[in-house]
Amino acid sequence: MKKHNGETALVAGGAGFIGSHLCRALLQQGYRVVCLDNLLTSRRSNLLALEAERDFTFVEGDVLDPLPQELCDRAGDITRIYNLACAASPPLYQADPEHTMLTNVVGTDKLLRFAEQTGARFLLTSTSEVYGDPERHPQVEDYRGYVSCTGPRACYDEGKRAAEAMTLDFARVGRADVRVARIFNTYGPNMNPDDGRVVSNLVCQALLRLPLTLYGDGRQTRSFCYVADMVQALMLLMESEAAGPDPINLGNPEELTITELVAAIEAIMPHPLEIIYKPLPVDDPTRRQPDISRARAVLGWHPETALSEGLAKTVAWFQRELGRNVPAKETRRVARVAAV
Amino acid sequence: MKKHNGETALVAGGAGFIGSHLCRALLQQGYRVVCLDNLLTSRRSNLLALEAERDFTFVEGDVLDPLPQELCDRAGDITRIYNLACAASPPLYQADPEHTMLTNVVGTDKLLRFAEQTGARFLLTSTSEVYGDPERHPQVEDYRGYVSCTGPRACYDEGKRAAEAMTLDFARVGRADVRVARIFNTYGPNMNPDDGRVVSNLVCQALLRLPLTLYGDGRQTRSFCYVADMVQALMLLMESEAAGPDPINLGNPEELTITELVAAIEAIMPHPLEIIYKPLPVDDPTRRQPDISRARAVLGWHPETALSEGLAKTVAWFQRELGRNVPAKETRRVARVAAV
Repeated sequence: MKKHNGETALVAGGAGFIGSHLCRALLQQGYRVVCLDNLLTSRRSNLLALEAERDFTFVEGDVLDPLPQELCDRAGDITRIYNLACAASPPLYQADPEHTMLTNVVGTDKLLRFAEQTGARFLLTSTSEVYGDPERHPQVEDYRGYVSCTGPRACYDEGKRAAEAMTLDFARVGRADVRVARIFNTYGPNMNPDDGRVVSNLVCQALLRLPLTLYGDGRQTRSFCYVADMVQALMLLMESEAAGPDPINLGNPEELTITELVAAIEAIMPHPLEIIYKPLPVDDPTRRQPDISRARAVLGWHPETALSEGLAKTVAWFQRELGRNVPAKETRRVARVAAV
Repeated sequence: MKKHNGETALVAGGAGFIGSHLCRALLQQGYRVVCLDNLLTSRRSNLLALEAERDFTFVEGDVLDPLPQELCDRAGDITRIYNLACAASPPLYQADPEHTMLTNVVGTDKLLRFAEQTGARFLLTSTSEVYGDPERHPQVEDYRGYVSCTGPRACYDEGKRAAEAMTLDFARVGRADVRVARIFNTYGPNMNPDDGRVVSNLVCQALLRLPLTLYGDGRQTRSFCYVADMVQALMLLMESEAAGPDPINLGNPEELTITELVAAIEAIMPHPLEIIYKPLPVDDPTRRQPDISRARAVLGWHPETALSEGLAKTVAWFQRELGRNVPAKETRRVARVAAV
């Protein structure tokens, strides 16, 4: 990739799971990076190594508040705005649905206006959730999805759909140069152990020798993309002149049942895993798989990290993470299991 | 219906087509009425007769701004909040898509918070547009729709879907007592002659002896509900204890092609009509028909006004309206036609 020495990228939500990897990769590409994050569902610890870097600045702030002065002062240098600001896992985004919706709509609007003001290119990280519980497989970008706008996931799903609508509207009348990524399930180091996502849930349970919780019958499918691949795709999309404003799916097209995921984790762990089954949450999609033909054609991108390799890195990271900071009740449960 | 003497109803968007009829009907039901409207796409002339009434107050304001002091002063008396605030016809809501989206999301949030603060019941007027270009007919409330979230109609369609999501979220945690109406095509006096809706377009063209513009082949269907029926339904829904927060379709299930609508107009007019065909706009739904089983069961409501009767009243109103204020260029064209 081309070097971007002297240019500044703003990463809203840069302390989150994908955001923190993106900040690092942007620094490696020569960008100065300003990370704006409210630390509500992200973690400053994800930025520990980055904060030592001269070209990295962390600004604590919520995209719903007026943009911090520190950011406005650097408006003239900013050429890229990545909007990753929003809680992304169901228990976290459902904890305050009003804030989730407003973050997606008002936050996106505010950053689009900042892009209009600065002339920076804007990238919205949208989501496979815009397809809801899809009735077509795999999902192509022009499939309009099957989303409940009244259910408990709607604050996120509809918030992202609304954010896409606004982003495309800014592009349609030339107010901003935009890109829209629809991110499918992604996993890797820096995931929040508490955010209830399937990979982090299962890996943590496995490491803590707890029974693994499976929702439904385990036959629902997902596609899991390793975070390094995803970050590469986001940057390729941002820098692509050819991509244009229309949404582009980013994810791993390799479809996997949750049961197969458990088997892949079991293959890494030194001990056998126990499984307990729970009912599927409301509106939980039963199948989700990206068609990435557009990403292949326009960006020349496809995920390269094998699941076994990505999972091994993820398990190793969670092992260190849990070792440093095992939640008290889990420690007790592990102790109990260990005592048996 | 029960009388509500002494209670106050807030009607946001009360100077619009449906809003103005609603204000009148609420006054007749004994409510004091405060109409909040920014007059962007609505018309103060719709309120001419109402402004003489003691129990009616007009407050000019945009739901995106802080609620006017005059409104906050009456917070203690307000028991009903109707949210009709949003441009509703494609050329008008597409003129400023950012404002349309924010009106639906931020405006609804603000009025929901006002409902939370006052304890007033809140009714969102949503729309059949949440079904997009539906793949099932007729549409029942639990059909999730087929909506493009990136097209030029998305600012409205997705804005309303997001507004529904927020409204249901307020209900789910007991922050507000809410009702959601999905309004299908409605027509009648007080429609804006310039808003590009099919009934007003065709009636005005017919009255001005201009060729009638048909988009597509005229075989796309709509269902047209007379405004008096719609207003009755909105009030029944608001006052219903049984209805609950889930959306409820309001409209006329009688499906009609646009060509049949033209024939119905022609039957009223004293002169034959000429038709010109134009291509269908992007994302224009080809078919839309409400299933109103829920409204029948829960509210005991169905539309009662025959199309011929409603159209006759509408034509008579537009005749007076255009007589008062014929646009200059149309006058010239009419004069030219008359001279031939």
